[in-house]
Amino acid sequence: MVGIIMGSISDLKVMQEAADVIKELGVDYEIDIVSAHRTPIKMVEYAQTARERGIKVIIAGAGGAAHLPGMVASVTTLPVIGVPVKSSNSIDGWDSVLSILQMPSGVPVATVALNGAKNAGILAVQMLGIENSSIAETLAEYKKQLSSKVDDMVTELKKTIQ
Amino acid sequence: MVGIIMGSISDLKVMQEAADVIKELGVDYEIDIVSAHRTPIKMVEYAQTARERGIKVIIAGAGGAAHLPGMVASVTTLPVIGVPVKSSNSIDGWDSVLSILQMPSGVPVATVALNGAKNAGILAVQMLGIENSSIAETLAEYKKQLSSKVDDMVTELKKTIQ
Amino acid sequence: MVGIIMGSISDLKVMQEAADVIKELGVDYEIDIVSAHRTPIKMVEYAQTARERGIKVIIAGAGGAAHLPGMVASVTTLPVIGVPVKSSNSIDGWDSVLSILQMPSGVPVATVALNGAKNAGILAVQMLGIENSSIAETLAEYKKQLSSKVDDMVTELKKTIQ
Amino acid sequence: MVGIIMGSISDLKVMQEAADVIKELGVDYEIDIVSAHRTPIKMVEYAQTARERGIKVIIAGAGGAAHLPGMVASVTTLPVIGVPVKSSNSIDGWDSVLSILQMPSGVPVATVALNGAKNAGILAVQMLGIENSSIAETLAEYKKQLSSKVDDMVTELKKTIQ
Amino acid sequence: MVGIIMGSISDLKVMQEAADVIKELGVDYEIDIVSAHRTPIKMVEYAQTARERGIKVIIAGAGGAAHLPGMVASVTTLPVIGVPVKSSNSIDGWDSVLSILQMPSGVPVATVALNGAKNAGILAVQMLGIENSSIAETLAEYKKQLSSKVDDMVTELKKTIQ
Amino acid sequence: MVGIIMGSISDLKVMQEAADVIKELGVDYEIDIVSAHRTPIKMVEYAQTARERGIKVIIAGAGGAAHLPGMVASVTTLPVIGVPVKSSNSIDGWDSVLSILQMPSGVPVATVALNGAKNAGILAVQMLGIENSSIAETLAEYKKQLSSKVDDMVTELKKTIQ
Amino acid sequence: MVGIIMGSISDLKVMQEAADVIKELGVDYEIDIVSAHRTPIKMVEYAQTARERGIKVIIAGAGGAAHLPGMVASVTTLPVIGVPVKSSNSIDGWDSVLSILQMPSGVPVATVALNGAKNAGILAVQMLGIENSSIAETLAEYKKQLSSKVDDMVTELKKTIQ
Amino acid sequence: MVGIIMGSISDLKVMQEAADVIKELGVDYEIDIVSAHRTPIKMVEYAQTARERGIKVIIAGAGGAAHLPGMVASVTTLPVIGVPVKSSNSIDGWDSVLSILQMPSGVPVATVALNGAKNAGILAVQMLGIENSSIAETLAEYKKQLSSKVDDMVTELKKTIQ
Repeated sequence: MVGIIMGSISDLKVMQEAADVIKELGVDYEIDIVSAHRTPIKMVEYAQTARERGIKVIIAGAGGAAHLPGMVASVTTLPVIGVPVKSSNSIDGWDSVLSILQMPSGVPVATVALNGAKNAGILAVQMLGIENSSIAETLAEYKKQLSSKVDDMVTELKKTIQ
Repeated sequence: MVGIIMGSISDLKVMQEAADVIKELGVDYEIDIVSAHRTPIKMVEYAQTARERGIKVIIAGAGGAAHLPGMVASVTTLPVIGVPVKSSNSIDGWDSVLSILQMPSGVPVATVALNGAKNAGILAVQMLGIENSSIAETLAEYKKQLSSKVDDMVTELKKTIQ
Repeated sequence: MVGIIMGSISDLKVMQEAADVIKELGVDYEIDIVSAHRTPIKMVEYAQTARERGIKVIIAGAGGAAHLPGMVASVTTLPVIGVPVKSSNSIDGWDSVLSILQMPSGVPVATVALNGAKNAGILAVQMLGIENSSIAETLAEYKKQLSSKVDDMVTELKKTIQ
Repeated sequence: MVGIIMGSISDLKVMQEAADVIKELGVDYEIDIVSAHRTPIKMVEYAQTARERGIKVIIAGAGGAAHLPGMVASVTTLPVIGVPVKSSNSIDGWDSVLSILQMPSGVPVATVALNGAKNAGILAVQMLGIENSSIAETLAEYKKQLSSKVDDMVTELKKTIQ
Repeated sequence: MVGIIMGSISDLKVMQEAADVIKELGVDYEIDIVSAHRTPIKMVEYAQTARERGIKVIIAGAGGAAHLPGMVASVTTLPVIGVPVKSSNSIDGWDSVLSILQMPSGVPVATVALNGAKNAGILAVQMLGIENSSIAETLAEYKKQLSSKVDDMVTELKKTIQ
Repeated sequence: MVGIIMGSISDLKVMQEAADVIKELGVDYEIDIVSAHRTPIKMVEYAQTARERGIKVIIAGAGGAAHLPGMVASVTTLPVIGVPVKSSNSIDGWDSVLSILQMPSGVPVATVALNGAKNAGILAVQMLGIENSSIAETLAEYKKQLSSKVDDMVTELKKTIQ
Repeated sequence: MVGIIMGSISDLKVMQEAADVIKELGVDYEIDIVSAHRTPIKMVEYAQTARERGIKVIIAGAGGAAHLPGMVASVTTLPVIGVPVKSSNSIDGWDSVLSILQMPSGVPVATVALNGAKNAGILAVQMLGIENSSIAETLAEYKKQLSSKVDDMVTELKKTIQ
Repeated sequence: MVGIIMGSISDLKVMQEAADVIKELGVDYEIDIVSAHRTPIKMVEYAQTARERGIKVIIAGAGGAAHLPGMVASVTTLPVIGVPVKSSNSIDGWDSVLSILQMPSGVPVATVALNGAKNAGILAVQMLGIENSSIAETLAEYKKQLSSKVDDMVTELKKTIQ
């Protein structure tokens, strides 16, 4: 199971895409709101108990001075994927990106693109697909769809420029 | 008493300036190493017990994805001063600055300039000088010294350009 | 009493949040417009007389080449909190942030996030709460509310994703 | 087994840290030079055959317009970790970071900090530790070491400031 | 013939300007969608066969971590013009610009301004006009039109300010 | 007479170039240290009395949160030229540039390049040369020298590449 | 007389403010469109003949890779004021600012804030006011108006917060 | 023949790489110093006569507010390749890059990486190789060398890690 957390309900419109793609790829997830700055104790407990509760990968999204992914990573040994959110209080997303990406040695966060929650979901499934051949096949199928969507675009292009 | 903390011993060469100016201005301090990412539980305990242990202002320095000042501020009601440190793993200091400055509503960190530990020390003493007229006088005296150092510079300039 | 100043009436929509949260936390404030560049003499007088007029912390907001917080800090020994305002003439807020944050040694400004006036208000009250246990209790209560608002968000989330 | 690749021998001084920490954590790795721009066909073959050759996670480091991690990720369904290298032709590392991090929807790269090869290694091992309790225990032990190194720093600090 | 490619149909509104100006200058072009990350094998084939199919210059537009221009350039010896597109997933265009411009030694991409597809088209025609005096004359005529459009602007200005 | 001021003796190595070129162009200058943050009252007096003391243009250099040029401009009606200095406490010069350049409507500062004190000196002389034909001729002669220095470079180049 | 030029009619909405304030301050101006890139020969002629045609200061506005101010400055000995315009093809204004501000030694451009045409106009008048006491008085009066507008704002503020 | 120009002899250490690779690829070049700001008339003449003098591609290198490539492109219909030079007066290269890259519609400059003179040389040869099969073969051979240099690196790597 993938655990998806975010610092505020306002991040849901971005983070929903992680949940959607994980579901589409046939993997379970749970979703919760955990704020590094407003519920620090809940955050520590979430991270400490994640593995025993059956969570295998954590996706954490946050904006501005985004401490949630890094702090969760400091407490658990599970891989943590960080989604920099371009929140309303962010300076064009640079604060979100840098405060998630630039973690010190010893405590990695797997950072994806600004607002890249969909990719966070795919990445989480890729981690689960390392040993699971069924998931790996689903991912290979997904890659083919990406390619065939480009074929559809080419068809659309041909119509447009005629 | 001012509590000075930093994420790593490598930050000491910057943070020492905070200690020095606080001492120079006649105020007590204690200094410790508390890492948000390597000792998260110690960090929470430090922040939770700071007020009762007699600490009145906390100065926290960190570099890169610098979560220490903001995380300490999330746990205590004391004012927290953040010093962005241009550490070896920082991208020209931008990550340190943004991950300390851009805190979300509800949890402020009083941020000073990159490597501005001396100003963090002065700011801490200014907070203590709000109600304490003796400290306020020391600060007024310090301001006069700043001005007279400029006079010394003018003297030096006159010699240089003669 | 907290003194709130800003460089232009156009900054009021941002700075009002400082006033509101200070009032909510039970502390008095006064509010004024003081421009570093258009009323430099009034600015110097404001800063010189602030302590004797009963002001204990100054919050100064400005945008673009934002000199007001730093210049006020150069004249008073009170702590000065700077709010970088993303004004219409600002380059994405970077000028506002850097011209407030990057003060030289000797003259600190406690800088908060871009448009972070609410946090400036909370920080001012935290400074007053150092020695005042009643204010400290109000702040502890405020922190609990932050946490319970996250609980409300979780309830909302559960409804949304059902 | 973790596959470590880089675009040039000049990246080895950064990427060696990934190899070292993976070895320290008891996991096998292989290391190779694969250039997106100078050996594009070899790159495609590397990525296409990685899973069948027993590679479970790929770590790819590159600098400047760093296309290696993203291009490898476009061909394989294995998780790919990207290490932005601050190479001699990079503009302060910004090009390396952005050209690895900002991948389009569908093709994630798990990006770590600039020159953060050590964290890439740890992250790779964390992925392998999702299902492997022995590796998970090694990681938990590693986390304890991080914490005890801070204790050593505190001891050093006490000596320094005496 | 000029070959115009882009990573997604969403780039067409920018890239259309390249096609339009090439046509206006009397040169043939073909246009296609080729995605570095979703159709990597098609991309390699496109680049490998471009010269023999009669393409003389390739214009490639992409946004975010924009790998298409550089990867095409790695496979062909034809000149490749890169158009950084400010796509919806881009951080203000910086990622698009840097991941196209900052190519390593040996594999140049002729980069034009952000969203500068029109200039990419003109540049492609300039390359074809090196040896072709008819095209060179068309370009000289085009330059005169640029100048006479400024004359029209002056007329408009005179009316406006009267 | 041109008045040259700077915030600290450490800026002299940059600002000396302004003095040197003004002298070379045959114009008088005076030089002083005036700090916006350490001697705010002296700064106001300097600016208020500059015109009556015979100063016709003011050149002000400062680094970091560089308030000196803008504050002087707020008090005088003389043209003020600002030199952003890349001081030791500056973030790569961006703070110096932005806090001088981005002045609000009503109070201009004529900003030159980072560390561009020489150009500040030339610009000051150009202002004095508006009505003074002798100075204008000196400037025309200076322009010829710039051109003939390029001729010297060409000679040097020919030797180098032989 | 002040000469105002811009690279395109689309810059007029910004540059009009320069004309308006110059007129308001009682000084003559002429306004024209001169493009560095589309009418380079006209640009050179404009700059070469400006002084003899009675122009005393040139204000040049341009956006993107903004070469007009610097190129005009390379040909004339008159002071040139550069206005970086945030044009539609600009990357958040950074290109406009840097390509005007960062002139090499020998050829200064007096740069004002992004879109700061009004300040360019005031600066031009300040240059003319160096020797002209009537203009200097007008400027002193203008400064008083700036100050009294702040008084009006204070009145408005008092009404708002009642 | 390729024409290589630069704004100053100090750019030669970067621009020499363009000359060297052009020679290595068997193409003729001439090299000169032409400054946009110090020899504007020479620059116009250089560009106006380039085609008739047998120049087929122009490579122009400059730093800071780098106007040389764009201004040359405004006068000639030949393709112009711009090399942003990280000169001593540049702000980390950003001014050089943006003032060359961000050309307005109608006047393209083929921009290469910061200090990317070698790639400028290769790109110029690629343009000449569009119609010239002998040059195209030389370029294909050069690409093979790039690939075999990676093989050499792999051999070196194997030795290093044994």
